[in-house]
Amino acid sequence: MYVLWNGNIVKQEEVVISQEDRGYQLGDGVYEVIKAYDGQLFTIKEHIDRLYESAEKIHLVIPYTKDVMHKMLHDLVEANELTTGHVYVQVTRGAAPRNHLFPEPGVEAVVTGNITFKERPVENFEKGVKVTIMEDTRWLHCDIKSISLLGAVLAKQAAAEKGCYEAVLHRDGIVTECAASNVLGIKDGVLYTHPANHFILNGITRRVIIQCAHEIGLPVKEEAFTVEELLAMDELIVSSTTSEVTPIVQVDEHKINDGIVGDYTRRLQASFAQRIAALH
Amino acid sequence: MYVLWNGNIVKQEEVVISQEDRGYQLGDGVYEVIKAYDGQLFTIKEHIDRLYESAEKIHLVIPYTKDVMHKMLHDLVEANELTTGHVYVQVTRGAAPRNHLFPEPGVEAVVTGNITFKERPVENFEKGVKVTIMEDTRWLHCDIKSISLLGAVLAKQAAAEKGCYEAVLHRDGIVTECAASNVLGIKDGVLYTHPANHFILNGITRRVIIQCAHEIGLPVKEEAFTVEELLAMDELIVSSTTSEVTPIVQVDEHKINDGIVGDYTRRLQASFAQRIAALH
Repeated sequence: MYVLWNGNIVKQEEVVISQEDRGYQLGDGVYEVIKAYDGQLFTIKEHIDRLYESAEKIHLVIPYTKDVMHKMLHDLVEANELTTGHVYVQVTRGAAPRNHLFPEPGVEAVVTGNITFKERPVENFEKGVKVTIMEDTRWLHCDIKSISLLGAVLAKQAAAEKGCYEAVLHRDGIVTECAASNVLGIKDGVLYTHPANHFILNGITRRVIIQCAHEIGLPVKEEAFTVEELLAMDELIVSSTTSEVTPIVQVDEHKINDGIVGDYTRRLQASFAQRIAALH
Repeated sequence: MYVLWNGNIVKQEEVVISQEDRGYQLGDGVYEVIKAYDGQLFTIKEHIDRLYESAEKIHLVIPYTKDVMHKMLHDLVEANELTTGHVYVQVTRGAAPRNHLFPEPGVEAVVTGNITFKERPVENFEKGVKVTIMEDTRWLHCDIKSISLLGAVLAKQAAAEKGCYEAVLHRDGIVTECAASNVLGIKDGVLYTHPANHFILNGITRRVIIQCAHEIGLPVKEEAFTVEELLAMDELIVSSTTSEVTPIVQVDEHKINDGIVGDYTRRLQASFAQRIAALH
């Protein structure tokens, strides 16, 4: 396995991460996960743009141009002959004696990346998944894709222990997103999803689904909805880079659309599939 | 410099942290900072107990007994001939292919520790410090001393950029704690501090100060107070392992007690100093 480490593609065993890397001691970094289909990186520009946006929001300088970052991720895919799976990249604020305060300007960010071979979860696309409702106890900057992920880790784990694919999170009854994905609902021919503010990550798959909705003539309202409204949706979708357009057919003990994947979801999946096919 | 790494005291350059350590990619770990005075670890039992409590709250198994942990930290101090400064120790959920979900049980936690020589900030104890007020945007499990610290990092950095020692955080006007310390106020002969619930870390220095207050006959109320009430306090203290009993003499442009360190604070400092002296 070849990995990305400070501008070079190297063998995984060559990488040495410092015990004092701020990513390791303070969760002080940002990341992206990018999907590869047959070796082609999907929405790579959007992911790189968001990586730099997240970095800027935490005042972290990535020591490469976006073009160089793009080339490095491309080289990482090539070196590993990645077909279908994903590319992971993270940037931390570098290694320095532990201190909450940012280190001196001379300390350079540490960029690491690796790849995972993984087939698309087509059974989930077909049959749909079950999710559970949970309180959103994460921080209030969910628009930043940061590696300080313990809140998301605990929510996703708690969901899995209940036999659920994801945790749908809410703050005071208002649905935000899932632990590691967005949630979208369709009611009376309108697609609803939480506005892209500091309560959610503006998912790139979420954005693509909004484009797909426009394409199939499904109106979109970026409006928050309550847990009650979520349960009354005609169709529900959980979206992320790895989940793509995954239908939700059950929320805890409550079935959505009698547990059957709805027509709009099928049409959104078809439109999404066309965009993947267009990569070639 | 000798460091702690998976049960052994080794030279710092021997340590290899995996790129896929969950501490590095997911902020999935807990930590403690323990003060050393002339080579003696202060409130070591309380710190080790809290480390295991934090670990338990995130369902992380530390692969050593508390006694072994105690011995390792002691050995780390000895190996480095640490006099005054602090010991840092963290435990992550180990290295595994990146996934929010916990890894298989076979994946063992990674324990790392190191030391820092540092004199006590006596000038701060003497003259007091300035702090700033900021919204508390961190997660809702602040009782867990986790390494997912980006929220605290950003708050402390923002405070420093305003020339302040710390950020006093509030949620909807209710003061919680500071970015990396607790805040305590004295009004009309009563010591107030936020109750030890999920909004704050139950600081060990905070607990010692409560004991000191009992000792000097200062009544203690573990009750939350508002930002307005904070500004009207007779005396204010910021407390942590490194800050000990640091007086706050200014909050943004507002002076506390005309910028003069108050009598109760001086008496608490004296009582605290006796406990340090008692280590020998």
